[in-house]
Amino acid sequence: MNSLLAEIRHNRMLWLLVFVPITFIAKQLNHEAHTLLFILSVLAIVPLAALLSHATESVAAKTGDAAGGLLNATLGNLTELVIALTALRAGEYMLVKASIAGVIVTNTLFMLGMCFLLGGLKHHVQEFNRLSARTQAGLLFLATIALMLPSAIAGVDAIDTVAQAGYIRELSLGLAVVLIAAYALGMLFSLKTHRDLFASAAHGEEDGEAPLPIGVALATLAGVTVLVALTSEVFVESVQQAAEDFGMSQAFVGFIVVALVGGAAEMASAFSGARKNRLDLSVGIALGSASQIALFVAPVMVLLSYFIGPAPMDLQFWPGAVLMMFVATLAAAFITVGGRSAWFVGVLLLMVYLVFAMTLYLLPPKVA
Amino acid sequence: MNSLLAEIRHNRMLWLLVFVPITFIAKQLNHEAHTLLFILSVLAIVPLAALLSHATESVAAKTGDAAGGLLNATLGNLTELVIALTALRAGEYMLVKASIAGVIVTNTLFMLGMCFLLGGLKHHVQEFNRLSARTQAGLLFLATIALMLPSAIAGVDAIDTVAQAGYIRELSLGLAVVLIAAYALGMLFSLKTHRDLFASAAHGEEDGEAPLPIGVALATLAGVTVLVALTSEVFVESVQQAAEDFGMSQAFVGFIVVALVGGAAEMASAFSGARKNRLDLSVGIALGSASQIALFVAPVMVLLSYFIGPAPMDLQFWPGAVLMMFVATLAAAFITVGGRSAWFVGVLLLMVYLVFAMTLYLLPPKVA
Amino acid sequence: MNSLLAEIRHNRMLWLLVFVPITFIAKQLNHEAHTLLFILSVLAIVPLAALLSHATESVAAKTGDAAGGLLNATLGNLTELVIALTALRAGEYMLVKASIAGVIVTNTLFMLGMCFLLGGLKHHVQEFNRLSARTQAGLLFLATIALMLPSAIAGVDAIDTVAQAGYIRELSLGLAVVLIAAYALGMLFSLKTHRDLFASAAHGEEDGEAPLPIGVALATLAGVTVLVALTSEVFVESVQQAAEDFGMSQAFVGFIVVALVGGAAEMASAFSGARKNRLDLSVGIALGSASQIALFVAPVMVLLSYFIGPAPMDLQFWPGAVLMMFVATLAAAFITVGGRSAWFVGVLLLMVYLVFAMTLYLLPPKVA
Repeated sequence: MNSLLAEIRHNRMLWLLVFVPITFIAKQLNHEAHTLLFILSVLAIVPLAALLSHATESVAAKTGDAAGGLLNATLGNLTELVIALTALRAGEYMLVKASIAGVIVTNTLFMLGMCFLLGGLKHHVQEFNRLSARTQAGLLFLATIALMLPSAIAGVDAIDTVAQAGYIRELSLGLAVVLIAAYALGMLFSLKTHRDLFASAAHGEEDGEAPLPIGVALATLAGVTVLVALTSEVFVESVQQAAEDFGMSQAFVGFIVVALVGGAAEMASAFSGARKNRLDLSVGIALGSASQIALFVAPVMVLLSYFIGPAPMDLQFWPGAVLMMFVATLAAAFITVGGRSAWFVGVLLLMVYLVFAMTLYLLPPKVA
Repeated sequence: MNSLLAEIRHNRMLWLLVFVPITFIAKQLNHEAHTLLFILSVLAIVPLAALLSHATESVAAKTGDAAGGLLNATLGNLTELVIALTALRAGEYMLVKASIAGVIVTNTLFMLGMCFLLGGLKHHVQEFNRLSARTQAGLLFLATIALMLPSAIAGVDAIDTVAQAGYIRELSLGLAVVLIAAYALGMLFSLKTHRDLFASAAHGEEDGEAPLPIGVALATLAGVTVLVALTSEVFVESVQQAAEDFGMSQAFVGFIVVALVGGAAEMASAFSGARKNRLDLSVGIALGSASQIALFVAPVMVLLSYFIGPAPMDLQFWPGAVLMMFVATLAAAFITVGGRSAWFVGVLLLMVYLVFAMTLYLLPPKVA
Repeated sequence: MNSLLAEIRHNRMLWLLVFVPITFIAKQLNHEAHTLLFILSVLAIVPLAALLSHATESVAAKTGDAAGGLLNATLGNLTELVIALTALRAGEYMLVKASIAGVIVTNTLFMLGMCFLLGGLKHHVQEFNRLSARTQAGLLFLATIALMLPSAIAGVDAIDTVAQAGYIRELSLGLAVVLIAAYALGMLFSLKTHRDLFASAAHGEEDGEAPLPIGVALATLAGVTVLVALTSEVFVESVQQAAEDFGMSQAFVGFIVVALVGGAAEMASAFSGARKNRLDLSVGIALGSASQIALFVAPVMVLLSYFIGPAPMDLQFWPGAVLMMFVATLAAAFITVGGRSAWFVGVLLLMVYLVFAMTLYLLPPKVA
């Protein structure tokens, strides 16, 4: 516990933790002040993400980079899981799907791009475990293909609408079962039969931060995750109204804002790994988290919609989202094939992300 | 001849050869018993495929893995060629095209996926000749692009229907000539000027099976090929009616069933190669056979349709088939780029194949 | 100056330089003789391109292959820049866009394919700097993605036409700014911070040609560039009418003819590099030039259209062109991933290009 307090004193960013109770108090006092609650909840999520990042790294130090990466991805995605669950219960399936697609695109373009840029500004050329990155990029590519196939088939075929709705629903259910089975086998593969493939190629110098003891780290992981969940709920409730006040389209909010804020925890870890020349950790977080969304979060939402949603949810995405997911995972696969990076590679990924964001921001309202 | 009989006694699967004469007799007795003939012909094709596989391996042992792979692909595709020719003469162009697309998708996803899975369950990590695999994957990718270009252009453009029909027919004819020329140059490349590129990287341990003498092997190849052809014809005649009885859509039959049964011979060889850690042979069969369908079988069908079909056949595919071919060859190219595989890579390829199969199985009847 | 005259005497192709003054005189005498002017201007551009190629190689000999490649790409694209500017001033935006898309496709399929074929016929297997090629292919892929995103989104979405026009125009303007920023950063990367990554892997034997002294080379570069510009203008004015006389569609002219003639200068350099086993130079020219069109020429045209065009130009391409650009850059990325080539790889790229050309040539007139 002392080591945790020392950590908070040491790291100025964690002083923002004061916004966590402020957010909850503000929510009690006036739950209609959407724009204020939106800003407060974002300010509260940032230090929680940083704390989560440090705790996860402490655990990762004991378990190896790849297992640590998986851990990060699993816990980092809790935020997205909570957001999606809240939206699912309210029947806002459009937001659920937009945030699923948005996380995949944001992780492969923005998170990976920023890692390459930040790491590249400090290190001339960075190397990472090519084999592990290829496996993860391949996994993500195939997972994304499977995820978007119903939408793509529905897009290219002229099936009449009534038959199509039933067809897409059946297909989405079958797809959800296949994706979850693949996810379970993937866990078996990366954690058990082929752990060795996920070992990291290069270890950067350690910085001054002492890792938390394993007990404190695990307790912090659990406690902070709960706080992230509670704060995320305030964020979800306020984000829609606040977006309108700021003049952002619904598609932009679901795709970009939810994905960026929801992924803050993982990004802090991934960027820190890149700056420490531990790009394996960064690539593992970015691609692993995106795969987990496609193989685990998305199908779980479909299955849960039969129990807690107002109606079954299918996996038919907006055609533009399908295109963006396809292009983003294709780009990630190309970029990671060589196992090396430099700052300009990051710039290019960020450029494509920026173009995607512009496209969504300018989108005429009717489509969103 | 003795060595062939010894082989049949040794290998229990070959006892199924008894279904070959049974199929022909059943056909003579009652050629309307479609479901029975369908099952009998499948049971007859399996041992023929196995025998063909052993004979091909015996020849391949003399000529190197890659030439053996080409041999396998050429002879293995005889089944598909016979099926396609039968359908072409009957004017069932939908079935011809579905089986062309189906073989490409089945080889790159199912056959390659099963090879990686079966080989990976026995060997921790398998290596294969990266250069040869990349060349073959690149060849297949470009061949598929060329094959599906007319459909893709027709899909994205709003040309009026009458002008389009003539346009697509002219384009298909020109395309057929280009594809066959590329196929001939490819033969020159892989068999003559650059044989060395197709040598294999790793040779597994030999199992107990003695290779057939070259004379017996060649005679077996010839004889069994004829039997496969005859049995395939029974299969083709019965498959449509049997499919309806089993409740399968036409698209599913052409795409999945014809490709799986038609490719049984090659699959037996490819799977056996993978289990013996000779993944070069397996990858060579899977990708080589798919390329041969795109570069040789497809254009030959177009050209022959002018002579033996009721009307000229074009190369315009159903949009969903175009998408599946594109994605499947893209996935194969990604997966083989590194020259290594493990069981989970196979699982992922099979997952995508399963999703494709589900998509086709659930397809509302009107589209099929 | 003497070395330049010696070069002209030495190289028979340069005797075609006589067509440069002939073109200008013919233009003065009868500026309506479109077909004659078209043929004369093509005959004049070829030797100018060759001279430009030799001068560029002389400078490249002093600066390293990659910087020479960039130099080549920059100067080679002057032709396309002039053509595009002429068309822009006349408000022929269709031709501007077709030539932008056409150069990307022609460089990645035809130029790269011919390099691999010509080099491969002389050398069994050629190696090139894999890392540099991957970086350039990745750059081109991401640049093309960004360039065609507005078209792709507009293609898949059912936005009503009035809202869409404004949306696409705003998006094109924003995109132009992002692309130019990425281009500037790319220059900084390849010429300053990471020059070392662009060093070449293999140097072929030098042939007999003596490089021009640096002063003469630079003066030749400048002077010949001006002549190319003047000749190109005659070419642009005559090409449309001549195309009709030859029965070619507008799409074919913009996409294929303009790109081939406009790229003649770079092609001479790239092919010569390939034959001398300096494939790094060739790949650098082909991919670098295509990237420069996407990241620099295209956005400059958009921005200039606000000043010198009759109306703002957007970046919405014909759907078939989007598909071709996507497929071509994807193919280039796959083909260059391994850092090796042989003649058949070139054949395959040329096959796809031929299929594209056929598709455009046969296109019914209304679409073009």
